[in-house]
Amino acid sequence: MLQVITSIEDIKQRIKTFKEDQLSIGFVPTMGALHEGHLSLVRQAKEENDKVVVSIFVNPLQFGVGEDFTQYPRTFDDDCKLLSKEDVDVVFNPKAPEMYPDGFCTSVVLEHLEDRLCGKSRPGHFRGVATIVLKLFNLINPDIAYFGQKDFQQTVIIKRVVADLNLGVNIKALPTIREKEGLALSSRNGYLSETEKKDALCLYKALIRVQEMANAGVKNAREILGEMEKIINNCKSARIDYISIVNPETLEAVSEVQHGDVAALAVRIGKTRLIDNIILMVLIAFFILLA
Amino acid sequence: MLQVITSIEDIKQRIKTFKEDQLSIGFVPTMGALHEGHLSLVRQAKEENDKVVVSIFVNPLQFGVGEDFTQYPRTFDDDCKLLSKEDVDVVFNPKAPEMYPDGFCTSVVLEHLEDRLCGKSRPGHFRGVATIVLKLFNLINPDIAYFGQKDFQQTVIIKRVVADLNLGVNIKALPTIREKEGLALSSRNGYLSETEKKDALCLYKALIRVQEMANAGVKNAREILGEMEKIINNCKSARIDYISIVNPETLEAVSEVQHGDVAALAVRIGKTRLIDNIILMVLIAFFILLA
Repeated sequence: MLQVITSIEDIKQRIKTFKEDQLSIGFVPTMGALHEGHLSLVRQAKEENDKVVVSIFVNPLQFGVGEDFTQYPRTFDDDCKLLSKEDVDVVFNPKAPEMYPDGFCTSVVLEHLEDRLCGKSRPGHFRGVATIVLKLFNLINPDIAYFGQKDFQQTVIIKRVVADLNLGVNIKALPTIREKEGLALSSRNGYLSETEKKDALCLYKALIRVQEMANAGVKNAREILGEMEKIINNCKSARIDYISIVNPETLEAVSEVQHGDVAALAVRIGKTRLIDNIILMVLIAFFILLA
Repeated sequence: MLQVITSIEDIKQRIKTFKEDQLSIGFVPTMGALHEGHLSLVRQAKEENDKVVVSIFVNPLQFGVGEDFTQYPRTFDDDCKLLSKEDVDVVFNPKAPEMYPDGFCTSVVLEHLEDRLCGKSRPGHFRGVATIVLKLFNLINPDIAYFGQKDFQQTVIIKRVVADLNLGVNIKALPTIREKEGLALSSRNGYLSETEKKDALCLYKALIRVQEMANAGVKNAREILGEMEKIINNCKSARIDYISIVNPETLEAVSEVQHGDVAALAVRIGKTRLIDNIILMVLIAFFILLA
């Protein structure tokens, strides 16, 4: 039976009872407008924990001036129906004035990591993310927390916060869920017209092309980025925000592609900013030395 | 029997056993060079908790360029003797490379609060404090943590971090311990020559004067600050860093003094920067309306 909790005091009490009963807690933080991507996290959380808590909170701190905070889709009742079906135990749906009361002034910053990739065009976004996730971790005290690989930089930042601040939470980043044609699921896909949705496939096509090139032995990042750029620019409604191939921990751009590097991009399709990424598998040549 | 723990893994294990046995934990974070001020915190912690953990860590993050990180007194063996006498359970003495490994980049910032008072002349200091205290809280998971009122701004910032990040730690700020003549105990008093130590009394004298003026009904902050300035400037070796009367939560300077406001100052005596403060008790006039 799904329990909806909206106050900080109530979630603390609920978590306390879970802990007293020594039940493990899986946590999926979301901004609602749930889709199969979120549900894949929820299902994994159900498998690996005694109790599953999902938070639904459109976090004002992670939206910049002129971004889509007010129009971000809010579908709480539908979300709860989906979570009920998945047998989730608790939905935590706090109110902004309780999360950020008067006088609130603390935030979590990550030098370098927060300024790269999406951080460049969304200044302050990742502090907002890191701060709310830390608050939620402190309230919910999960054993494992689940994030989607689609928000790649977010997963890197959260892992870094957990390591740097000595939090005892295990962070799992699960594969991006895609539509049949390849478009990564996102609550923001709802902003796209039918035509734009087709145009948006260029992100996926570019990523597939990177992997093909890596398979073919191309290691030069500039060469690969050039190809990606061409694919995106072929689509008239697309405007590149960034395309980059980066080290998966430092998020620094690489010049020579290695196994595990991440090709990431943000592209505007009309007014909608979409992101996607792929972790590159690069075959490693083994030289067997015969004695 | 005092147990000295130096690794993160070992402290986690120790805390886990305390929690499993449902023992409450009192925590006193310090940079060592312990004096009666620290010991007063330890004694209170002993009274109120099943177990007491003291950390000794000269935190590089909270020292600025040109500050006294390298010369800060390190008296670990003596500190342990003092803590043994007080029947402390655990000393946590981590090493900087384990607390701040390569790639470490997360810090806790407090807009406005960290830039005021001491933050002005020690940029970055309070992020360093907030970050290490959060790390230590996450490792030690205390029920109550104890700080000295002498580091007034620090106590305000830690309370704010705890509230803003929804940490379940009770913060207690205990009264400043002073030498007989009034000098606030500080590990940095060791830097002072005998003459300087006498000169340093001007800080206390100025604070006493504030309280006297408040008792006499003076409410105008500028008038009070003028008096404090005179007292400090009467001492030749003293150089004022700041003198301020502030709201105890926002740390904003007040123009009219109210009960609970704090007079705080930082003064250099020779090369040594000293701080002190007093919480002002202002008599409130009651008007009894007779019906």
